[in-house]
Amino acid sequence: MNNLRCDLVDAGLLIATGVDGIVGRGAVFEDVLMRLNAIIARWGTRHGAEVVHFPPVINRTHLERNGYLKSFPQLATALHGFTCDAHDGAVGEDLSTDLMMTPAACYPVYPMVAARGPLPIGGALFNIQSWCFRREPSQDTSRLQSFRMHEYVRLGTEGDVLAFREAWIVEAGALYESLQLPFRLDDANDAFFGRAGRLMASSQRERNLKIELLIAITSDTEPTACCSFNYAEDHFTDAWQIAMPDGSKALSCCVAFGMERTTLALFRHHGFDPARWPAPVRDVLYSDGR
Amino acid sequence: MNNLRCDLVDAGLLIATGVDGIVGRGAVFEDVLMRLNAIIARWGTRHGAEVVHFPPVINRTHLERNGYLKSFPQLATALHGFTCDAHDGAVGEDLSTDLMMTPAACYPVYPMVAARGPLPIGGALFNIQSWCFRREPSQDTSRLQSFRMHEYVRLGTEGDVLAFREAWIVEAGALYESLQLPFRLDDANDAFFGRAGRLMASSQRERNLKIELLIAITSDTEPTACCSFNYAEDHFTDAWQIAMPDGSKALSCCVAFGMERTTLALFRHHGFDPARWPAPVRDVLYSDGR
Repeated sequence: MNNLRCDLVDAGLLIATGVDGIVGRGAVFEDVLMRLNAIIARWGTRHGAEVVHFPPVINRTHLERNGYLKSFPQLATALHGFTCDAHDGAVGEDLSTDLMMTPAACYPVYPMVAARGPLPIGGALFNIQSWCFRREPSQDTSRLQSFRMHEYVRLGTEGDVLAFREAWIVEAGALYESLQLPFRLDDANDAFFGRAGRLMASSQRERNLKIELLIAITSDTEPTACCSFNYAEDHFTDAWQIAMPDGSKALSCCVAFGMERTTLALFRHHGFDPARWPAPVRDVLYSDGR
Repeated sequence: MNNLRCDLVDAGLLIATGVDGIVGRGAVFEDVLMRLNAIIARWGTRHGAEVVHFPPVINRTHLERNGYLKSFPQLATALHGFTCDAHDGAVGEDLSTDLMMTPAACYPVYPMVAARGPLPIGGALFNIQSWCFRREPSQDTSRLQSFRMHEYVRLGTEGDVLAFREAWIVEAGALYESLQLPFRLDDANDAFFGRAGRLMASSQRERNLKIELLIAITSDTEPTACCSFNYAEDHFTDAWQIAMPDGSKALSCCVAFGMERTTLALFRHHGFDPARWPAPVRDVLYSDGR
Protein backbone atom coordinates (compact mmCIF):
# COMPACT_ATOMS: atom_id res chain seq x y z
CA MET A 1 0.00 0.00 0.00
CA ASN A 2 3.04 2.29 0.20
CA ASN A 3 2.76 2.90 -3.51
CA LEU A 4 -0.94 3.73 -3.45
CA ARG A 5 -0.29 7.37 -4.36
CA CYS A 6 1.93 6.45 -7.32
CA ASP A 7 -0.60 3.88 -8.52
CA LEU A 8 -3.46 6.40 -8.26
CA VAL A 9 -1.43 8.98 -10.21
CA ASP A 10 -0.43 6.42 -12.85
CA ALA A 11 -4.10 5.47 -13.25
CA GLY A 12 -5.07 9.12 -13.77
CA LEU A 13 -7.28 9.12 -10.67
CA LEU A 14 -5.08 11.71 -8.95
CA ILE A 15 -2.69 14.28 -10.46
CA ALA A 16 0.65 15.12 -8.85
CA THR A 17 1.40 18.82 -8.25
CA GLY A 18 4.88 18.71 -6.75
CA VAL A 19 3.67 19.62 -3.24
CA ASP A 20 2.96 16.99 -0.58
CA GLY A 21 -0.72 16.77 0.31
CA ILE A 22 -1.84 18.77 -2.75
CA VAL A 23 -3.25 16.74 -5.64
CA GLY A 24 -5.46 17.27 -8.67
CA ARG A 25 -8.41 14.96 -9.26
CA GLY A 26 -9.09 13.14 -12.51
CA ALA A 27 -12.62 12.81 -13.92
CA VAL A 28 -13.29 9.32 -12.53
CA PHE A 29 -12.16 10.17 -8.98
CA GLU A 30 -14.18 13.39 -9.00
CA ASP A 31 -17.30 11.66 -10.31
CA VAL A 32 -17.23 9.12 -7.45
CA LEU A 33 -16.65 11.89 -4.90
CA MET A 34 -19.61 13.90 -6.21
CA ARG A 35 -21.83 10.79 -6.08
CA LEU A 36 -20.87 10.24 -2.43
CA ASN A 37 -21.58 13.91 -1.80
CA ALA A 38 -25.06 13.56 -3.27
CA ILE A 39 -25.79 10.50 -1.11
CA ILE A 40 -24.72 12.34 2.05
CA ALA A 41 -26.79 15.37 1.03
CA ARG A 42 -29.99 13.27 0.72
CA TRP A 43 -30.20 12.83 4.50
CA GLY A 44 -30.30 16.61 4.86
CA THR A 45 -33.14 16.93 2.37
CA ARG A 46 -35.13 14.30 4.29
CA HIS A 47 -34.46 16.02 7.63
CA GLY A 48 -34.95 19.63 6.50
CA ALA A 49 -31.34 20.73 6.99
CA GLU A 50 -30.54 24.24 5.77
CA VAL A 51 -27.91 24.11 3.00
CA VAL A 52 -25.10 26.68 3.17
CA HIS A 53 -21.83 26.93 1.25
CA PHE A 54 -18.75 28.92 2.20
CA PRO A 55 -15.53 29.62 0.31
CA PRO A 56 -12.20 27.95 1.20
CA VAL A 57 -11.16 31.07 3.17
CA ILE A 58 -12.55 32.48 6.42
CA ASN A 59 -12.57 35.76 8.32
CA ARG A 60 -9.49 35.55 10.56
CA THR A 61 -11.29 37.08 13.55
CA HIS A 62 -13.88 34.29 13.39
CA LEU A 63 -11.21 31.60 13.75
CA GLU A 64 -9.53 33.57 16.54
CA ARG A 65 -12.80 33.84 18.42
CA ASN A 66 -13.14 30.05 18.29
CA GLY A 67 -9.66 29.70 19.79
CA TYR A 68 -8.29 27.98 16.70
CA LEU A 69 -4.95 29.82 16.75
CA LYS A 70 -4.38 28.74 20.35
CA SER A 71 -5.54 25.14 19.96
CA PHE A 72 -4.18 24.34 16.47
CA PRO A 73 -1.46 26.88 15.59
CA GLN A 74 0.54 24.12 13.88
CA LEU A 75 -2.26 23.57 11.32
CA ALA A 76 -3.40 27.19 10.93
CA THR A 77 -2.67 28.96 7.65
CA ALA A 78 -3.01 32.68 6.92
CA LEU A 79 -3.27 34.47 3.56
CA HIS A 80 -0.64 37.08 2.74
CA GLY A 81 -0.42 39.55 -0.11
CA PHE A 82 2.68 41.17 -1.61
CA THR A 83 3.99 44.73 -1.58
CA CYS A 84 4.56 45.94 -5.09
CA ASP A 85 7.09 48.42 -6.42
CA ALA A 86 5.21 51.11 -8.34
CA HIS A 87 7.85 51.39 -11.07
CA ASP A 88 8.84 47.92 -12.14
CA GLY A 89 6.23 45.68 -10.58
CA ALA A 90 8.82 43.93 -8.46
CA VAL A 91 7.59 41.97 -5.49
CA GLY A 92 8.58 43.03 -1.99
CA GLU A 93 7.59 41.79 1.44
CA ASP A 94 4.36 40.14 2.34
CA LEU A 95 1.35 41.92 3.78
CA SER A 96 -1.07 39.98 5.90
CA THR A 97 -4.76 39.92 4.96
CA ASP A 98 -7.78 39.49 7.22
CA LEU A 99 -8.29 35.95 5.95
CA MET A 100 -7.19 32.42 6.83
CA MET A 101 -7.74 29.06 5.19
CA THR A 102 -10.93 27.33 6.42
CA PRO A 103 -9.82 24.35 8.55
CA ALA A 104 -13.26 22.72 8.93
CA ALA A 105 -16.49 23.25 7.03
CA CYS A 106 -18.55 24.10 10.13
CA TYR A 107 -16.55 27.10 11.42
CA PRO A 108 -18.37 29.77 9.35
CA VAL A 109 -21.77 28.44 10.44
CA TYR A 110 -21.47 29.74 14.01
CA PRO A 111 -21.00 33.48 13.26
CA MET A 112 -23.84 33.19 10.71
CA VAL A 113 -26.16 31.65 13.32
CA ALA A 114 -25.08 34.18 15.97
CA ALA A 115 -25.98 37.06 13.65
CA ARG A 116 -29.55 35.73 13.40
CA GLY A 117 -30.22 36.01 17.14
CA PRO A 118 -31.54 33.25 19.42
CA LEU A 119 -32.11 29.82 17.86
CA PRO A 120 -35.62 28.91 16.75
CA ILE A 121 -37.63 26.44 18.86
CA GLY A 122 -36.13 22.98 18.34
CA GLY A 123 -32.70 24.39 17.49
CA ALA A 124 -31.12 24.30 14.03
CA LEU A 125 -29.61 21.86 11.54
CA PHE A 126 -27.16 22.72 8.74
CA ASN A 127 -25.81 20.82 5.74
CA ILE A 128 -22.50 22.39 4.76
CA GLN A 129 -19.68 21.53 2.38
CA SER A 130 -16.39 23.33 1.91
CA TRP A 131 -12.81 23.01 0.80
CA CYS A 132 -10.67 22.82 3.94
CA PHE A 133 -6.95 23.30 4.52
CA ARG A 134 -4.62 22.07 7.24
CA ARG A 135 -0.87 22.72 7.12
CA GLU A 136 0.42 19.18 7.52
CA PRO A 137 2.37 18.22 4.36
CA SER A 138 2.58 14.44 4.20
CA GLN A 139 3.41 11.77 1.66
CA ASP A 140 0.43 9.80 2.96
CA THR A 141 -2.23 10.24 0.26
CA SER A 142 -4.97 9.90 2.84
CA ARG A 143 -3.62 13.01 4.63
CA LEU A 144 -4.15 15.85 2.17
CA GLN A 145 -3.54 19.49 3.06
CA SER A 146 -6.37 20.70 0.79
CA PHE A 147 -9.52 18.56 0.81
CA ARG A 148 -13.30 18.69 0.95
CA MET A 149 -15.41 18.15 4.04
CA HIS A 150 -19.17 17.55 4.05
CA GLU A 151 -20.71 18.25 7.46
CA TYR A 152 -23.97 18.34 9.31
CA VAL A 153 -24.11 20.69 12.29
CA ARG A 154 -26.85 20.41 14.89
CA LEU A 155 -27.46 23.15 17.47
CA GLY A 156 -29.94 22.68 20.31
CA THR A 157 -30.32 21.23 23.78
CA GLU A 158 -27.97 18.51 25.00
CA GLY A 159 -30.69 15.94 24.28
CA ASP A 160 -31.19 17.28 20.73
CA VAL A 161 -27.56 17.28 19.76
CA LEU A 162 -26.63 13.94 21.34
CA ALA A 163 -29.62 12.25 19.68
CA PHE A 164 -28.44 13.73 16.36
CA ARG A 165 -24.96 12.31 16.93
CA GLU A 166 -26.27 8.87 17.86
CA ALA A 167 -28.51 8.81 14.78
CA TRP A 168 -25.59 9.70 12.53
CA ILE A 169 -23.32 7.03 14.02
CA VAL A 170 -25.95 4.49 12.94
CA GLU A 171 -26.62 6.21 9.59
CA ALA A 172 -22.94 6.51 8.66
CA GLY A 173 -22.27 2.90 9.68
CA ALA A 174 -25.07 1.77 7.37
CA LEU A 175 -23.68 3.91 4.54
CA TYR A 176 -20.14 2.53 4.84
CA GLU A 177 -21.52 -0.99 5.14
CA SER A 178 -23.55 -0.51 1.96
CA LEU A 179 -20.30 0.60 0.28
CA GLN A 180 -18.66 -2.62 1.55
CA LEU A 181 -15.91 -0.68 3.29
CA PRO A 182 -14.62 -2.45 6.42
CA PHE A 183 -14.56 0.06 9.28
CA ARG A 184 -14.38 0.33 13.03
CA LEU A 185 -15.49 3.08 15.40
CA ASP A 186 -13.12 4.41 18.04
CA ASP A 187 -12.81 7.20 20.58
CA ALA A 188 -10.46 9.89 19.33
CA ASN A 189 -9.13 13.37 20.02
CA ASP A 190 -8.30 16.44 17.98
CA ALA A 191 -4.62 17.34 17.42
CA PHE A 192 -4.56 20.03 20.14
CA PHE A 193 -1.15 21.73 20.28
CA GLY A 194 1.42 21.76 23.08
CA ARG A 195 1.32 20.90 26.78
CA ALA A 196 -2.14 22.34 27.47
CA GLY A 197 -3.28 20.60 24.30
CA ARG A 198 -2.30 17.19 25.66
CA LEU A 199 -4.63 17.71 28.60
CA MET A 200 -7.46 18.83 26.33
CA ALA A 201 -6.90 15.81 24.08
CA SER A 202 -6.99 13.27 26.91
CA SER A 203 -10.06 14.91 28.44
CA GLN A 204 -11.80 14.86 25.04
CA ARG A 205 -11.01 11.17 24.68
CA GLU A 206 -12.03 10.19 28.21
CA ARG A 207 -15.34 11.94 27.85
CA ASN A 208 -16.15 10.36 24.46
CA LEU A 209 -16.56 13.77 22.83
CA LYS A 210 -15.03 12.65 19.52
CA ILE A 211 -15.73 9.33 17.80
CA GLU A 212 -14.08 8.42 14.51
CA LEU A 213 -15.03 5.94 11.82
CA LEU A 214 -11.73 4.38 10.70
CA ILE A 215 -10.93 2.57 7.44
CA ALA A 216 -7.60 1.10 6.32
CA ILE A 217 -6.46 3.12 3.31
CA THR A 218 -2.69 3.56 3.24
CA SER A 219 -2.00 1.40 6.31
CA ASP A 220 -3.70 -1.66 7.80
CA THR A 221 -2.29 -0.97 11.26
CA GLU A 222 -3.07 2.76 11.30
CA PRO A 223 -6.46 3.14 9.64
CA THR A 224 -7.64 6.57 8.48
CA ALA A 225 -10.52 8.57 9.99
CA CYS A 226 -13.05 8.93 7.16
CA CYS A 227 -15.84 10.35 9.26
CA SER A 228 -16.08 11.86 12.74
CA PHE A 229 -18.92 12.44 15.19
CA ASN A 230 -18.14 15.36 17.44
CA TYR A 231 -19.82 16.74 20.53
CA ALA A 232 -18.47 20.28 20.92
CA GLU A 233 -20.50 20.89 24.11
CA ASP A 234 -20.68 24.71 24.46
CA HIS A 235 -17.29 25.41 22.88
CA PHE A 236 -18.69 27.18 19.80
CA THR A 237 -22.05 28.29 21.19
CA ASP A 238 -20.34 29.97 24.15
CA ALA A 239 -17.79 31.74 21.93
CA TRP A 240 -20.63 33.01 19.73
CA GLN A 241 -23.23 33.53 22.50
CA ILE A 242 -25.76 31.30 20.79
CA ALA A 243 -28.74 30.57 23.05
CA MET A 244 -32.00 28.63 22.89
CA PRO A 245 -35.20 30.72 22.46
CA ASP A 246 -35.79 30.63 26.25
CA GLY A 247 -32.31 32.05 26.85
CA SER A 248 -30.83 28.75 28.06
CA LYS A 249 -27.50 27.51 26.82
CA ALA A 250 -27.36 25.97 23.34
CA LEU A 251 -24.95 23.12 22.59
CA SER A 252 -23.66 21.70 19.32
CA CYS A 253 -22.61 18.48 17.60
CA CYS A 254 -21.28 17.92 14.12
CA VAL A 255 -20.71 14.95 11.89
CA ALA A 256 -17.96 15.42 9.31
CA PHE A 257 -17.21 13.32 6.23
CA GLY A 258 -13.73 13.46 4.68
CA MET A 259 -14.78 13.33 1.03
CA GLU A 260 -11.39 12.54 -0.48
CA ARG A 261 -10.69 9.94 2.22
CA THR A 262 -13.98 8.13 1.68
CA THR A 263 -13.42 8.22 -2.08
CA LEU A 264 -9.87 6.90 -1.64
CA ALA A 265 -11.21 4.09 0.55
CA LEU A 266 -13.48 2.95 -2.29
CA PHE A 267 -10.61 2.85 -4.81
CA ARG A 268 -8.34 1.15 -2.26
CA HIS A 269 -10.82 -1.60 -1.38
CA HIS A 270 -12.65 -2.15 -4.67
CA GLY A 271 -9.97 -1.39 -7.28
CA PHE A 272 -9.34 1.47 -9.69
CA ASP A 273 -12.20 0.82 -12.12
CA PRO A 274 -15.66 1.70 -10.75
CA ALA A 275 -17.26 -0.30 -13.58
CA ARG A 276 -15.87 -3.43 -11.90
CA TRP A 277 -16.88 -2.59 -8.32
CA PRO A 278 -19.25 -5.05 -6.57
CA ALA A 279 -22.79 -4.77 -7.89
CA PRO A 280 -24.33 -3.77 -4.51
CA VAL A 281 -21.75 -0.94 -4.19
CA ARG A 282 -22.51 0.23 -7.73
CA ASP A 283 -26.22 0.13 -6.91
CA VAL A 284 -25.64 2.59 -4.06
CA LEU A 285 -23.50 4.98 -6.12
CA TYR A 286 -25.07 4.72 -9.58
CA SER A 287 -28.75 4.33 -8.76
CA ASP A 288 -29.46 7.41 -10.91
CA GLY A 289 -28.59 5.31 -13.96
CA ARG A 290 -25.77 7.59 -15.14
CA MET B 1 -28.32 48.69 -7.64
CA ASN B 2 -26.03 49.98 -4.89
CA ASN B 3 -27.92 47.90 -2.40
CA LEU B 4 -27.78 44.69 -4.40
CA ARG B 5 -25.46 43.05 -1.88
CA CYS B 6 -27.68 43.97 1.09
CA ASP B 7 -30.76 42.78 -0.77
CA LEU B 8 -29.09 39.46 -1.67
CA VAL B 9 -28.03 38.95 1.96
CA ASP B 10 -31.50 39.88 3.27
CA ALA B 11 -33.02 37.36 0.84
CA GLY B 12 -30.68 34.61 2.11
CA LEU B 13 -29.08 34.19 -1.34
CA LEU B 14 -25.71 35.35 -0.01
CA ILE B 15 -24.31 35.29 3.55
CA ALA B 16 -22.16 38.13 4.92
CA THR B 17 -18.83 37.13 6.52
CA GLY B 18 -17.47 40.49 7.65
CA VAL B 19 -14.76 40.58 4.95
CA ASP B 20 -15.22 42.43 1.64
CA GLY B 21 -15.39 40.09 -1.32
CA ILE B 22 -15.92 36.98 0.84
CA VAL B 23 -19.49 35.67 1.02
CA GLY B 24 -21.29 32.46 1.85
CA ARG B 25 -23.90 31.08 -0.53
CA GLY B 26 -27.43 30.09 0.43
CA ALA B 27 -29.07 26.95 -0.98
CA VAL B 28 -30.99 28.72 -3.76
CA PHE B 29 -27.95 30.63 -5.05
CA GLU B 30 -25.79 27.51 -4.96
CA ASP B 31 -28.41 25.42 -6.76
CA VAL B 32 -28.57 27.91 -9.66
CA LEU B 33 -24.77 28.06 -9.84
CA MET B 34 -24.48 24.26 -9.99
CA ARG B 35 -27.11 24.13 -12.75
CA LEU B 36 -25.13 26.65 -14.80
CA ASN B 37 -22.02 24.58 -14.13
CA ALA B 38 -23.72 21.46 -15.47
CA ILE B 39 -24.84 23.29 -18.63
CA ILE B 40 -21.30 24.54 -19.31
CA ALA B 41 -19.92 21.03 -18.65
CA ARG B 42 -22.21 19.49 -21.31
CA TRP B 43 -20.23 21.13 -24.13
CA GLY B 44 -17.11 19.36 -22.87
CA THR B 45 -18.85 15.98 -22.85
CA ARG B 46 -19.96 16.52 -26.45
CA HIS B 47 -16.44 17.58 -27.52
CA GLY B 48 -14.46 14.98 -25.58
CA ALA B 49 -12.78 17.41 -23.19
CA GLU B 50 -10.72 15.82 -20.41
CA VAL B 51 -12.15 16.75 -17.00
CA VAL B 52 -9.65 17.72 -14.30
CA HIS B 53 -10.17 19.31 -10.88
CA PHE B 54 -7.59 21.09 -8.77
CA PRO B 55 -7.76 22.43 -5.22
CA PRO B 56 -7.98 26.17 -4.42
CA VAL B 57 -4.21 26.28 -3.78
CA ILE B 58 -1.31 25.89 -6.20
CA ASN B 59 2.41 25.06 -6.11
CA ARG B 60 4.11 28.46 -5.76
CA THR B 61 6.88 27.59 -8.23
CA HIS B 62 4.23 26.88 -10.90
CA LEU B 63 2.80 30.38 -10.59
CA GLU B 64 6.28 31.90 -10.56
CA ARG B 65 7.19 30.03 -13.74
CA ASN B 66 4.15 31.55 -15.45
CA GLY B 67 5.35 35.03 -14.41
CA TYR B 68 2.29 35.63 -12.23
CA LEU B 69 4.23 37.31 -9.42
CA LYS B 70 5.72 39.78 -11.88
CA SER B 71 2.55 40.48 -13.85
CA PHE B 72 -0.04 40.46 -11.04
CA PRO B 73 1.78 40.95 -7.70
CA GLN B 74 -1.11 43.11 -6.46
CA LEU B 75 -3.53 40.17 -6.75
CA ALA B 76 -1.17 37.37 -5.70
CA THR B 77 -1.74 35.69 -2.34
CA ALA B 78 0.58 33.32 -0.52
CA LEU B 79 -0.17 30.85 2.29
CA HIS B 80 1.71 31.26 5.56
CA GLY B 81 1.89 29.04 8.62
CA PHE B 82 2.64 30.00 12.20
CA THR B 83 5.56 29.29 14.48
CA CYS B 84 4.40 27.65 17.67
CA ASP B 85 5.81 27.83 21.16
CA ALA B 86 6.40 24.29 22.40
CA HIS B 87 5.33 25.06 25.98
CA ASP B 88 2.16 27.07 25.83
CA GLY B 89 1.02 26.78 22.25
CA ALA B 90 1.37 30.50 21.71
CA VAL B 91 1.57 31.74 18.17
CA GLY B 92 4.72 33.44 16.93
CA GLU B 93 5.77 34.73 13.54
CA ASP B 94 4.58 33.43 10.22
CA LEU B 95 6.38 30.85 8.12
CA SER B 96 5.84 30.83 4.40
CA THR B 97 4.65 27.63 2.71
CA ASP B 98 5.29 26.47 -0.85
CA LEU B 99 1.69 27.27 -1.79
CA MET B 100 -0.29 30.19 -3.17
CA MET B 101 -3.98 30.73 -3.84
CA THR B 102 -5.01 29.64 -7.35
CA PRO B 103 -5.80 32.83 -9.29
CA ALA B 104 -7.33 31.14 -12.37
CA ALA B 105 -8.59 27.60 -12.91
CA CYS B 106 -6.31 26.89 -15.89
CA TYR B 107 -2.90 27.50 -14.25
CA PRO B 108 -2.41 23.95 -12.90
CA VAL B 109 -3.28 22.44 -16.29
CA TYR B 110 0.00 23.52 -17.94
CA PRO B 111 2.46 21.74 -15.59
CA MET B 112 0.24 18.64 -15.78
CA VAL B 113 0.33 18.70 -19.59
CA ALA B 114 4.08 19.40 -19.63
CA ALA B 115 4.72 16.33 -17.46
CA ARG B 116 3.00 14.14 -20.06
CA GLY B 117 5.46 15.05 -22.84
CA PRO B 118 4.55 16.31 -26.33
CA LEU B 119 0.87 16.91 -27.08
CA PRO B 120 -1.07 14.19 -28.90
CA ILE B 121 -1.95 14.74 -32.59
CA GLY B 122 -4.70 17.35 -32.74
CA GLY B 123 -3.62 18.95 -29.45
CA ALA B 124 -5.62 18.78 -26.23
CA LEU B 125 -8.81 20.09 -24.65
CA PHE B 126 -9.54 20.38 -20.91
CA ASN B 127 -12.66 21.10 -18.88
CA ILE B 128 -11.58 22.47 -15.51
CA GLN B 129 -13.29 24.06 -12.52
CA SER B 130 -11.72 25.52 -9.44
CA TRP B 131 -12.10 27.95 -6.60
CA CYS B 132 -9.97 31.00 -7.42
CA PHE B 133 -8.69 33.86 -5.28
CA ARG B 134 -7.60 37.39 -6.13
CA ARG B 135 -6.62 39.89 -3.45
CA GLU B 136 -8.88 42.78 -4.37
CA PRO B 137 -11.29 43.43 -1.48
CA SER B 138 -14.26 45.37 -2.82
CA GLN B 139 -17.76 46.26 -1.73
CA ASP B 140 -18.91 45.46 -5.26
CA THR B 141 -20.66 42.08 -4.95
CA SER B 142 -19.72 41.21 -8.51
CA ARG B 143 -16.02 41.49 -7.56
CA LEU B 144 -15.45 38.68 -5.07
CA GLN B 145 -12.02 37.74 -3.77
CA SER B 146 -12.91 34.03 -3.54
CA PHE B 147 -15.02 32.68 -6.39
CA ARG B 148 -15.40 29.75 -8.80
CA MET B 149 -14.22 29.68 -12.38
CA HIS B 150 -15.22 27.09 -14.97
CA GLU B 151 -12.79 26.98 -17.89
CA TYR B 152 -12.06 25.21 -21.13
CA VAL B 153 -8.42 25.20 -22.21
CA ARG B 154 -7.42 24.31 -25.75
CA LEU B 155 -3.80 23.59 -26.70
CA GLY B 156 -2.77 23.08 -30.31
CA THR B 157 -1.76 24.95 -33.45
CA GLU B 158 -2.74 28.59 -33.92
CA GLY B 159 -5.55 27.44 -36.20
CA ASP B 160 -6.82 24.94 -33.62
CA VAL B 161 -6.90 27.31 -30.71
CA LEU B 162 -8.33 30.33 -32.56
CA ALA B 163 -11.10 28.16 -34.04
CA PHE B 164 -11.88 26.97 -30.49
CA ARG B 165 -12.07 30.56 -29.29
CA GLU B 166 -14.34 31.63 -32.16
CA ALA B 167 -16.62 28.65 -31.55
CA TRP B 168 -16.92 29.52 -27.85
CA ILE B 169 -17.69 33.19 -28.54
CA VAL B 170 -20.71 31.97 -30.53
CA GLU B 171 -21.57 29.20 -28.00
CA ALA B 172 -21.39 31.50 -24.98
CA GLY B 173 -23.40 34.19 -26.75
CA ALA B 174 -26.13 31.64 -27.43
CA LEU B 175 -26.05 30.49 -23.80
CA TYR B 176 -26.40 34.00 -22.33
CA GLU B 177 -29.13 34.79 -24.89
CA SER B 178 -31.03 31.66 -23.83
CA LEU B 179 -30.74 32.91 -20.25
CA GLN B 180 -32.18 36.28 -21.41
CA LEU B 181 -29.18 38.16 -20.03
CA PRO B 182 -28.42 41.33 -22.03
CA PHE B 183 -24.69 41.35 -22.86
CA ARG B 184 -22.10 42.90 -25.10
CA LEU B 185 -18.68 41.69 -26.20
CA ASP B 186 -15.66 43.96 -25.93
CA ASP B 187 -11.88 43.89 -26.25
CA ALA B 188 -10.27 43.86 -22.85
CA ASN B 189 -6.99 43.48 -21.02
CA ASP B 190 -5.77 41.77 -17.88
CA ALA B 191 -4.88 43.93 -14.85
CA PHE B 192 -1.10 43.79 -15.49
CA PHE B 193 0.79 45.66 -12.76
CA GLY B 194 2.93 48.78 -12.99
CA ARG B 195 4.58 50.66 -15.85
CA ALA B 196 5.61 47.61 -17.87
CA GLY B 197 2.14 46.25 -17.22
CA ARG B 198 0.51 49.22 -18.91
CA LEU B 199 2.38 48.42 -22.11
CA MET B 200 1.40 44.75 -21.90
CA ALA B 201 -2.22 45.70 -21.31
CA SER B 202 -2.42 48.04 -24.29
CA SER B 203 -0.69 45.53 -26.55
CA GLN B 204 -3.10 42.80 -25.41
CA ARG B 205 -6.04 45.05 -26.20
CA GLU B 206 -4.75 46.23 -29.59
CA ARG B 207 -4.13 42.69 -30.70
CA ASN B 208 -7.57 41.40 -29.59
CA LEU B 209 -6.02 38.75 -27.35
CA LYS B 210 -8.72 39.10 -24.68
CA ILE B 211 -12.43 39.45 -25.35
CA GLU B 212 -14.95 39.80 -22.53
CA LEU B 213 -18.67 39.16 -22.35
CA LEU B 214 -20.06 41.99 -20.22
CA ILE B 215 -23.36 42.14 -18.32
CA ALA B 216 -24.70 44.94 -16.12
CA ILE B 217 -24.85 43.58 -12.57
CA THR B 218 -23.99 46.23 -9.99
CA SER B 219 -23.63 49.09 -12.49
CA ASP B 220 -25.29 49.90 -15.81
CA THR B 221 -22.39 52.08 -16.94
CA GLU B 222 -19.62 49.68 -15.91
CA PRO B 223 -20.87 46.20 -16.75
CA THR B 224 -19.14 43.14 -15.29
CA ALA B 225 -17.10 40.59 -17.27
CA CYS B 226 -18.98 37.28 -16.81
CA CYS B 227 -17.00 35.33 -19.35
CA SER B 228 -13.69 35.86 -21.18
CA PHE B 229 -12.16 34.39 -24.33
CA ASN B 230 -8.39 34.52 -24.10
CA TYR B 231 -5.67 33.84 -26.63
CA ALA B 232 -2.50 33.31 -24.57
CA GLU B 233 -0.35 32.77 -27.69
CA ASP B 234 2.77 30.93 -26.45
CA HIS B 235 2.83 32.53 -22.99
CA PHE B 236 2.06 29.32 -21.10
CA THR B 237 3.27 26.78 -23.65
CA ASP B 238 6.67 28.50 -23.85
CA ALA B 239 7.02 28.67 -20.04
CA TRP B 240 6.21 24.95 -19.84
CA GLN B 241 7.94 23.85 -23.07
CA ILE B 242 4.78 22.29 -24.44
CA ALA B 243 5.18 21.29 -28.09
CA MET B 244 3.10 19.67 -30.83
CA PRO B 245 3.95 16.02 -31.66
CA ASP B 246 6.16 17.20 -34.58
CA GLY B 247 8.13 19.43 -32.21
CA SER B 248 6.59 22.66 -33.47
CA LYS B 249 5.36 25.30 -31.06
CA ALA B 250 2.02 24.71 -29.33
CA LEU B 251 -0.26 27.64 -28.53
CA SER B 252 -3.20 27.97 -26.15
CA CYS B 253 -6.57 29.63 -25.71
CA CYS B 254 -8.97 29.47 -22.80
CA VAL B 255 -12.57 30.42 -22.20
CA ALA B 256 -13.40 31.25 -18.59
CA PHE B 257 -16.81 31.57 -16.95
CA GLY B 258 -17.14 33.53 -13.73
CA MET B 259 -19.67 31.26 -12.01
CA GLU B 260 -20.73 33.62 -9.22
CA ARG B 261 -20.93 36.55 -11.65
CA THR B 262 -23.15 34.68 -14.09
CA THR B 263 -25.34 33.50 -11.22
CA LEU B 264 -25.54 37.05 -9.84
CA ALA B 265 -26.53 38.31 -13.30
CA LEU B 266 -29.52 35.93 -13.31
CA PHE B 267 -30.74 37.14 -9.90
CA ARG B 268 -30.13 40.79 -10.88
CA HIS B 269 -32.06 40.58 -14.14
CA HIS B 270 -34.80 38.06 -13.33
CA GLY B 271 -35.43 38.68 -9.63
CA PHE B 272 -34.64 36.78 -6.45
CA ASP B 273 -37.09 33.88 -6.90
CA PRO B 274 -36.09 31.36 -9.60
CA ALA B 275 -39.62 29.93 -9.54
CA ARG B 276 -40.76 33.23 -11.09
CA TRP B 277 -38.04 33.53 -13.75
CA PRO B 278 -39.17 33.64 -17.41
CA ALA B 279 -40.31 30.22 -18.63
CA PRO B 280 -37.65 29.96 -21.38
CA VAL B 281 -34.91 30.68 -18.82
CA ARG B 282 -36.34 28.05 -16.47
CA ASP B 283 -36.47 25.60 -19.36
CA VAL B 284 -32.72 26.04 -19.86
CA LEU B 285 -31.85 25.65 -16.18
CA TYR B 286 -34.45 23.16 -14.96
CA SER B 287 -34.79 20.86 -17.96
CA ASP B 288 -33.87 17.92 -15.70
CA GLY B 289 -37.24 18.34 -14.00
CA ARG B 290 -35.82 18.90 -10.51
